[in-house]
Amino acid sequence: MTKKGILIVVSGFSGAGKGTIMKELLKQYDNYALSISATTRKPRPGEEEGREYFFKTVKEFEKMIAKDELIEYARYVDNYYGTPRAYVEEQLETGKDVILEIEIQGALKVKEKFPETLLLFVTPPTAKELKHRLVGRGTETMDVIEFRMNRAKEEAEGMDKYDYLIVNDVLAECVEEVHQIIQGEHRRSFRNQAFIEHMKEELKGE
Amino acid sequence: MTKKGILIVVSGFSGAGKGTIMKELLKQYDNYALSISATTRKPRPGEEEGREYFFKTVKEFEKMIAKDELIEYARYVDNYYGTPRAYVEEQLETGKDVILEIEIQGALKVKEKFPETLLLFVTPPTAKELKHRLVGRGTETMDVIEFRMNRAKEEAEGMDKYDYLIVNDVLAECVEEVHQIIQGEHRRSFRNQAFIEHMKEELKGE
Repeated sequence: MTKKGILIVVSGFSGAGKGTIMKELLKQYDNYALSISATTRKPRPGEEEGREYFFKTVKEFEKMIAKDELIEYARYVDNYYGTPRAYVEEQLETGKDVILEIEIQGALKVKEKFPETLLLFVTPPTAKELKHRLVGRGTETMDVIEFRMNRAKEEAEGMDKYDYLIVNDVLAECVEEVHQIIQGEHRRSFRNQAFIEHMKEELKGE
Repeated sequence: MTKKGILIVVSGFSGAGKGTIMKELLKQYDNYALSISATTRKPRPGEEEGREYFFKTVKEFEKMIAKDELIEYARYVDNYYGTPRAYVEEQLETGKDVILEIEIQGALKVKEKFPETLLLFVTPPTAKELKHRLVGRGTETMDVIEFRMNRAKEEAEGMDKYDYLIVNDVLAECVEEVHQIIQGEHRRSFRNQAFIEHMKEELKGE
């Protein structure tokens, strides 16, 4: 069956725990790789080139855009953030499933460019729980709550464009579920065209 | 998340072991139900009404066709075989995933009628192994081998219309894999529209 890795985009409501799930996944299994973004923002103390980010000048970054070396990119405030294609493709070739943690706009761009991308959306188990997390512990300013609410509304609009909903209730179970879903995806017919063609060829020979 | 069961159609190369996999699945987990076919053929010794088949007269069967009480049906030699809708729908409503073991023509008809049907195709791990199983132990007549080969060719043509390829190498692993794939399917966004709509509604209220 397929030896090539799957490109996986993970998005989700803020506070749904996608970062934690991915960290656990990488810790427990060695067949995943986390994509490392390129950015033009300055490294913060403790951040290392090629670990948290690939740090680029604006000129370098724009050259990468021009040469189509980024799978997707976006500009937040005054900085560029993007996903370097080379690292992702290298990892996929070695058979690793590569995880990108990006927001919906980026996710849909990646899916358009690479239709075989697997889109996962992480959500709390209930709408009530989501609201609870957004409103916080009563210590947030109205501005913060409103910002989160608007963003969650936007995110919710895109939920049905994702392939799977990952319900984060009990973390350990959720991590296992994500792993099983990805493993299952490796068995999709459209990811195993070579296997199918080989079967057909062998049978034709008779 | 979704409480309704998933309709699952299982097909595959003859000798690939789909019957055995399904038997094991039903033995190990209680969230599956096997669909029981209706047929006009006479019961064989030991067969029980409502266990192996629902036994019908031709007149009864044709009435079922006319009243659209069958999800799919086919005629082999002189007998009708079909899948009664009522039993399947009852089981799905109680939350059971209902498994239909039928051939490709029937599988595609079911998918057309119920687009959310999950199609699984069971195959040996390699083309070589498949050929080996088709040719048998050297004790088969050329007629039998040719019949199997032609059927396998037909079946192979439809492989990529199935959602997943189930590779039956080690039975226990294969059963577990099928279970995980079906469980994963319950997390598909398109199977959880009610959950998504509920989230959107709750957020709109703010």
